[in-house]
Amino acid sequence: MGNADLECRHRVGVPPSTPFLVSLKSSLKETFFPDDPFRQFQNQPLGRKLVLGLQYFMPILEWAPRYTFEFFKADVVAGITIASLAVPQGISYASLANLPPIIGLYSSFVPPLVYAMLGSSKDLAVGTVAVASLLISSLLTKEVNPIENPKLYVQLALTSTFFAGVFQAAMGFLRLGFIVDFLSHATIVGFMGGAATVVCLQQLKGILGLVHFTHGTDLVSVMRSILTQTHQWRWESGVLGCCFLFFLILTRYFSKRKGAFFWANALAPLLSVILGSLLVFLTHAEKHGVQVIGHLKKGLNPPSLFELAFGSEYLPIAIKTGIITGVIALAEGIAVGRSFAMFKNYHIDGNKEMIAIGMMNIAGSCTSCYLTTGPFSRTAVNFNAGCKTAVSNIVMATAVMITLLCLTPLFHYTPLVVLSSIIITAMVGLIDYEAAIHLWKVDKFDFVVCVGSYFGVIFGSVEIGLVIAVVISLLRVLLFVARPKTHVLGNIPNSAAFRSIDQYPVARSLPGILILQIDAPIYFTNANYLRERLSRWIDEEEDKLKSSLEIGLQYVILDMSAVASIDTSGISMLEEVKKTLDRRGLKLVLANPRSEVMKKLDKSKFIDAIGEEWIYLSVAEAVGACNFMLHSCKSNTKTIESEEADNIV
Amino acid sequence: MGNADLECRHRVGVPPSTPFLVSLKSSLKETFFPDDPFRQFQNQPLGRKLVLGLQYFMPILEWAPRYTFEFFKADVVAGITIASLAVPQGISYASLANLPPIIGLYSSFVPPLVYAMLGSSKDLAVGTVAVASLLISSLLTKEVNPIENPKLYVQLALTSTFFAGVFQAAMGFLRLGFIVDFLSHATIVGFMGGAATVVCLQQLKGILGLVHFTHGTDLVSVMRSILTQTHQWRWESGVLGCCFLFFLILTRYFSKRKGAFFWANALAPLLSVILGSLLVFLTHAEKHGVQVIGHLKKGLNPPSLFELAFGSEYLPIAIKTGIITGVIALAEGIAVGRSFAMFKNYHIDGNKEMIAIGMMNIAGSCTSCYLTTGPFSRTAVNFNAGCKTAVSNIVMATAVMITLLCLTPLFHYTPLVVLSSIIITAMVGLIDYEAAIHLWKVDKFDFVVCVGSYFGVIFGSVEIGLVIAVVISLLRVLLFVARPKTHVLGNIPNSAAFRSIDQYPVARSLPGILILQIDAPIYFTNANYLRERLSRWIDEEEDKLKSSLEIGLQYVILDMSAVASIDTSGISMLEEVKKTLDRRGLKLVLANPRSEVMKKLDKSKFIDAIGEEWIYLSVAEAVGACNFMLHSCKSNTKTIESEEADNIV
Repeated sequence: MGNADLECRHRVGVPPSTPFLVSLKSSLKETFFPDDPFRQFQNQPLGRKLVLGLQYFMPILEWAPRYTFEFFKADVVAGITIASLAVPQGISYASLANLPPIIGLYSSFVPPLVYAMLGSSKDLAVGTVAVASLLISSLLTKEVNPIENPKLYVQLALTSTFFAGVFQAAMGFLRLGFIVDFLSHATIVGFMGGAATVVCLQQLKGILGLVHFTHGTDLVSVMRSILTQTHQWRWESGVLGCCFLFFLILTRYFSKRKGAFFWANALAPLLSVILGSLLVFLTHAEKHGVQVIGHLKKGLNPPSLFELAFGSEYLPIAIKTGIITGVIALAEGIAVGRSFAMFKNYHIDGNKEMIAIGMMNIAGSCTSCYLTTGPFSRTAVNFNAGCKTAVSNIVMATAVMITLLCLTPLFHYTPLVVLSSIIITAMVGLIDYEAAIHLWKVDKFDFVVCVGSYFGVIFGSVEIGLVIAVVISLLRVLLFVARPKTHVLGNIPNSAAFRSIDQYPVARSLPGILILQIDAPIYFTNANYLRERLSRWIDEEEDKLKSSLEIGLQYVILDMSAVASIDTSGISMLEEVKKTLDRRGLKLVLANPRSEVMKKLDKSKFIDAIGEEWIYLSVAEAVGACNFMLHSCKSNTKTIESEEADNIV
Repeated sequence: MGNADLECRHRVGVPPSTPFLVSLKSSLKETFFPDDPFRQFQNQPLGRKLVLGLQYFMPILEWAPRYTFEFFKADVVAGITIASLAVPQGISYASLANLPPIIGLYSSFVPPLVYAMLGSSKDLAVGTVAVASLLISSLLTKEVNPIENPKLYVQLALTSTFFAGVFQAAMGFLRLGFIVDFLSHATIVGFMGGAATVVCLQQLKGILGLVHFTHGTDLVSVMRSILTQTHQWRWESGVLGCCFLFFLILTRYFSKRKGAFFWANALAPLLSVILGSLLVFLTHAEKHGVQVIGHLKKGLNPPSLFELAFGSEYLPIAIKTGIITGVIALAEGIAVGRSFAMFKNYHIDGNKEMIAIGMMNIAGSCTSCYLTTGPFSRTAVNFNAGCKTAVSNIVMATAVMITLLCLTPLFHYTPLVVLSSIIITAMVGLIDYEAAIHLWKVDKFDFVVCVGSYFGVIFGSVEIGLVIAVVISLLRVLLFVARPKTHVLGNIPNSAAFRSIDQYPVARSLPGILILQIDAPIYFTNANYLRERLSRWIDEEEDKLKSSLEIGLQYVILDMSAVASIDTSGISMLEEVKKTLDRRGLKLVLANPRSEVMKKLDKSKFIDAIGEEWIYLSVAEAVGACNFMLHSCKSNTKTIESEEADNIV
């Protein structure tokens, strides 16, 4: 090697500079259209293009042709189960929002139908949620009194739902769905566990037959609400609850052990509702402390397009309420959809999801529905009841429609305690402590994210938990870029490879040459740190060599293989490092600078400053050249070097 | 190669797992002590350790022994120049804060002395600033009326200064100085230009002799304030201002062209002050529209330790004011220090700087001074007057002391217009449009940061400008991690190197093998994107091969050289990619996974899933093995492959 190698060395290419607009266009495309949705349209006839476009915007057209009767059976069971939940949930959440109870039922009819056509999740069950309902009431009640002026209040709630929908759909059309990616695996494990814990505890309200209960969703206010009302606990309700809970958990346990019991498990919730209602009807238990759903008005959703208060003086508050609740509902809906998709190992398209949730709220606001999204508890019951596709939402909507039209009397006697038992059973198993242990073993940082998300949810709220987890996760990313790892490389014997001596203890360092590798793009966040760290490596190496009487340090090779990008602060840093090394009589050599880096080094004249002959294609070539120089300049160096040089081929 | 190569293949090491606490300690050390301040203490006798420790905390002990008379001459000129600025600035800012004017003068005496001992900047001139003064008045006036209760108001202002100092120093002791690194080169170019533009425009107040002026610092309110008061413009003041401005710019121009004029330039501001004062004194111009500083009380700072209102009921508001103004003052002081350090090519230690600014405010609060930091205009004048070290602050403090003791009558006739001219001259040249053009050429993103910072400062405020710039810069970092580049690699002829075919058009791809390189750590932010992107690369490759009738795709090699880290979302992504490839009949091969990545792949059992034999030390070895398999499995493949394989050595 040596001389021959120097002659046939490879030039490091400066890639041809692309015009600004071309590179801008391509990076915008990668940022907003990473899934390249237009790809499938290429080279297709117009008719096919139209079909594909429709399928893109309405996922139902894509999966409906493959829909089977097996799926349908499962979806019917799941749909009816969640419909039996939708009635009491709809009523209680509507009262949280200071709206007439029937609006809560209306909200389980139209939006699920819209979602079934547009949504990309197979498990999301559409409905109203506690947090958004509370927020609507707290934001609107400041301006309009729902008791003095109920008509205006309802109009404003519908108008704000309309704006929430417009905002959500706009986010989808603007391709901001990638925000979904910021919910990591670890975040979701913690979020699910926390949400399941809190929802379980909240169901104690139903089990213990409590009438007054906190609106808070955190552990502290729920426990306080339960423990300060010990005198209100109803043993009748409690006994009934425990029986149903036992029945549901038992069927679940057996169906997991033997496949034949699958139907028992799937039908158990519906069976419980029927049994419970019959029991109450026959024993008149509603007069002995067992709460029931009670009377419901008949009739379908009235249209409400002309109720929307666009001309009202309260329009600004409606827009504000819409945007705030819209964001929060979107966060919950997408987090829930993504969580269950993770369980079943399929993927959610964030953009489609945003558009689907937005469109269903726009449609809802025109048909007397208020803000809906994918509530955690209902989706968990849906998942647990074995739903296969969004058809379960259609079944639920149909069931709610039939209920609204004629079955409302049948639900009169359904005890709330049965519904609580169904929810609790669905929650068991979502607290995935094994996944948390796995996180601790594999990645401590992800474990911290998971725990942060869990405690955020149980002591704060769903939103606080998500924010904590996302902030910790982003801090990790920033820390990675602010404090990148640097490694000293050595030659792996009998190969041309140079690898970190920490990872490969066999790697041998070469006399007179220090090879350093930087593990991250060189940005302003780490430029200062890297300057300090590089000079520390060099100091340490020189200290070591001083004591060992070996040949002094002559060359510092920076392996830039992992430096994918650089900014102007980074270039200044390299310039300073070069100056410092020159002053100390050392030579800076770059190995394998990447395309982006070469472009910028070229434009900033750093290549001219360092000299093109000091930039090599690979560490091996750089080492070969340095060894050759060490050889030819110092005739009195030991022969060990030539052996080294020959080994590196 | 081929068989022989397979036998001598190198194992990819899984590094020994370090105990959790050891790795936590080492990463905390890299995060908070990257400069390794304890290193110099190692193996030193106790006495030397003490000296080094003192030098670390008091940088003056380090540079004072090397101080020369040349430096002193320059510092004296600069110090006297900024002292002549300190008097009017101190008075006007104190009145902004609703404090007695003399407190503004006191604040230019004690804090500069403390900073000179502890600070690491050579150019920072200490004094009060407009924004913090305004904030103090707006926060405290809400609680206490400064006219009805002047004593309590002053006490609260001093107490909040004390807490600001404690907070600032605490940030330094907690090693949070790395926050300084988030002000990039580009941010500072924009920030300096914006600040210089705004300060210049503000000085039109003095030049035009306006009495009432906006407290806002943005372009719009300054221009409105000037243009709505055209009837208040004083031609006497304007003429005087233009004369002095002409004189100052002329001396500056000549001193740049001929070194002999250096002293003329340095002494020009002081000369202007003396000339201006004499002129006013002789012509009684103060009675004809030329504003002068006016009467000042004699005597040094009274101690105020026992004035601090720790027992007051207003303590919470004092603490709140202290923290808010402390953060803002710190941001301005550090940004200014760092900017001028960049000009002179030396470095500021963020931690020392925070401690110095904090200590000077604690000391100040005990000696009747209110919040001080490094104001941009005064520092620029200091820099422009040729200061060499922090001694200029000592000279300024001494000059202010002498002024307070006996010279206050002399400043009586100093016209404000002269001071405005000095400031404007110092601003010229700080608008570094050439640097902005350079940023545009080298790095478009940095240019956007710079422009954002510039417009943020001129249309908002210093803080808004800094926030805009930092947010854009961080978005870039996040974008890098969210949308990493992926490259197809090819073999560079006559070498074992595999490089991006975009950067090296000579690189040749190999039949049946697709080599992909990922350019960033695989985190939750990019796991989804990378899954989409990798499958797109594979689709495109298969499409290409389908039409070309070549050998079909068999192996996908992922070059992990640039993947420095991975989290659990990333591992799930790799597992999914492997499953997808298995389903398509393709084989996933990893090349050169790094230490961190190997650890996590090992713990999560991914290595077992993929098989250890499919992980190679380098792309070349992986390609060698794949080629060998293609050969031995398919005897009917063309001989071209063996040629390929032989080339790769």
